[in-house]
Amino acid sequence: MVQLSPEGTLTPVHIGDYTTEAGVTIPDVTIAYQRWGEFRGDADGNNNLLLIEHALTGDTDVADWWCDLLGPGKALDTDRWCVICTNVIGGCKGSTGPSSEHPDGDVWGSRFPAISIRDQVAVERQFLDALGISHLHAVLGGSMGGARALEWTLMYPSVLSSACVIAVSARASAWQIGIQAAQISAIERDPDWQGGNFHGTGRSPDAGLAAARRIAHLTYRGEQEMDERFGTTPQTGENPLGPYHSPGQRFAVESYLDYQGIKLVERFDAGSYVILTDSLNRHDIGRGRGGLNKALASTQVPTMIVGVDTDILYPYHQQEHLSRNVGNLLGMAKIVSPVGHDAFLAESRQMDRVLRRFLNLSTAEVAAGEGRGGYSI
Amino acid sequence: MVQLSPEGTLTPVHIGDYTTEAGVTIPDVTIAYQRWGEFRGDADGNNNLLLIEHALTGDTDVADWWCDLLGPGKALDTDRWCVICTNVIGGCKGSTGPSSEHPDGDVWGSRFPAISIRDQVAVERQFLDALGISHLHAVLGGSMGGARALEWTLMYPSVLSSACVIAVSARASAWQIGIQAAQISAIERDPDWQGGNFHGTGRSPDAGLAAARRIAHLTYRGEQEMDERFGTTPQTGENPLGPYHSPGQRFAVESYLDYQGIKLVERFDAGSYVILTDSLNRHDIGRGRGGLNKALASTQVPTMIVGVDTDILYPYHQQEHLSRNVGNLLGMAKIVSPVGHDAFLAESRQMDRVLRRFLNLSTAEVAAGEGRGGYSI
Repeated sequence: MVQLSPEGTLTPVHIGDYTTEAGVTIPDVTIAYQRWGEFRGDADGNNNLLLIEHALTGDTDVADWWCDLLGPGKALDTDRWCVICTNVIGGCKGSTGPSSEHPDGDVWGSRFPAISIRDQVAVERQFLDALGISHLHAVLGGSMGGARALEWTLMYPSVLSSACVIAVSARASAWQIGIQAAQISAIERDPDWQGGNFHGTGRSPDAGLAAARRIAHLTYRGEQEMDERFGTTPQTGENPLGPYHSPGQRFAVESYLDYQGIKLVERFDAGSYVILTDSLNRHDIGRGRGGLNKALASTQVPTMIVGVDTDILYPYHQQEHLSRNVGNLLGMAKIVSPVGHDAFLAESRQMDRVLRRFLNLSTAEVAAGEGRGGYSI
Repeated sequence: MVQLSPEGTLTPVHIGDYTTEAGVTIPDVTIAYQRWGEFRGDADGNNNLLLIEHALTGDTDVADWWCDLLGPGKALDTDRWCVICTNVIGGCKGSTGPSSEHPDGDVWGSRFPAISIRDQVAVERQFLDALGISHLHAVLGGSMGGARALEWTLMYPSVLSSACVIAVSARASAWQIGIQAAQISAIERDPDWQGGNFHGTGRSPDAGLAAARRIAHLTYRGEQEMDERFGTTPQTGENPLGPYHSPGQRFAVESYLDYQGIKLVERFDAGSYVILTDSLNRHDIGRGRGGLNKALASTQVPTMIVGVDTDILYPYHQQEHLSRNVGNLLGMAKIVSPVGHDAFLAESRQMDRVLRRFLNLSTAEVAAGEGRGGYSI
């Protein structure tokens, strides 16, 4: 009998030791999760479980960041589906990460090992084992969450009936690695970073983390949407056209980006930011599998691919590549939006249609699979 | 009689005091320039002068950075045209800038005022006055040089017979301001910046300037070209997939970007980088002219607009906007390239055709103008 957490409550689960892809053992890993909707079906077969994968600085609270999409009667209908979202290993929202306590009583800090997307997925599999679950109707996610969903289809295809992979690519591109390395560098060059061992020192690399977020945000948002909102408008009470250049005299868009930086500093750990950004740099489904296209072709999990037309971080041609090469394409959808990458979070109306279509198609696939003897369960 | 510098030799010209758009006077400004080809024609009327405008960290040596395009028989045919390129005010390649000597004998440093694109053009006009020149066949430039060429058509239309505006927009976009502010911030957060007064202290914000350049370079190069070159290849002898994240274990693209940063530090002043990047943030041809489109429509200088299909810094829709609204469109050209913004420097074959077409069209316009009594000379 599967015992799940009280609805909506962040709940830690001890999943035991975990050894990373690169060979470091993390003892007694905790993974925190939230759950909505009642579990129905077979924990080892056909059931109503949807595993949602959050993005880089996201968290388990899907009811918050996809508030238009999760709930009774919504696309992720909690009257029908049992939705689970775990906080990623390496994160700072309840799961073991660089800011967690090390077995020696101090903080992990720089001792926390590198984490790959595959590690994130392997840990999640171990988490499901701890709950007594060995099958899911679907895994869904965008951005880093999309990378996790894609790796799920390759690492544990027999666990999934379907996947929805949103706004991501088959591997990191050189440009992504470049811009993500710039963010890591902004943190590591902050003197308060202290080599990653800043926890408990009374100093933290807030300026570096804020700088990283400002850069990142420019890859999350489309330039046309930002320009419509801010253009060259000066920030109220400041004069960026004054006689001398001054950091305190800003355009409105600078103030907006500063605010994004400050908001992240208030809610996120710089160590987790470095570890998770590095995991995106390591994203490569072709590694050890004979290359990207061979890897993609190898899975038979019915997979829906979703992209955003104005995404500069994961340009749409990357989702076209996925859709051309994935072994069992369930469907493809393009979000049309000036917002850029973040459209999978911001364009609720379009995402509602995409997710409903995905769940209809994947449900039909499962029904058909049962009819012909089943391909996945 | 116009006396010009020896061919190819960087030559300083004292142009007197200059007062910026925002009201600060810089005494005894020096502007350095290079010249190729013999001057022919009327210094105050029809002549063979082409003024080339360099980009942000460019310099006067057009024979170097457009080596395929400048020279005898090339598109900028120095047997036919007299080509001039000035180093921008605020720069560090011979013209007065933050690293120049202040009248008090110390370095300008943080006392150097903010410079707008309009200041760059007004100073250049003053420079031409000092040489005894009051007419040009054309002004050409890309990126910041394109912003200068565009301002020339609005500030001094009677001086120009034509202009070629490449890979730029009518004003800074919010995204550009954001990413450029991130670069300025990377320098200003370097403790060795010392508020801009680092010259002569034995410390300079090399790490900050290199970080700025790494970010900038990602806006200059197309993601597809970078991915073809580097993909997820590790740097030789390093392992970015190792058990711990380490700044010393890099992907090849990180090493490439680090190299771009180091190269810039060796050749460019951080103070100039801040001043000139800030000038791009101030770029707005609509300021004080009733808005962008009214300003664009107001000039009758025949203007060619050139863009790059994969430019993320100055996306092609910005050049489409210019071409739709400019008062006298001589022509439009699209460089098709995976290289991105830098294609106007890198795609020599296409740029050769664009510049030949521009000079043919502009020469025909001048001839037609003479036939019907002249519109510009």
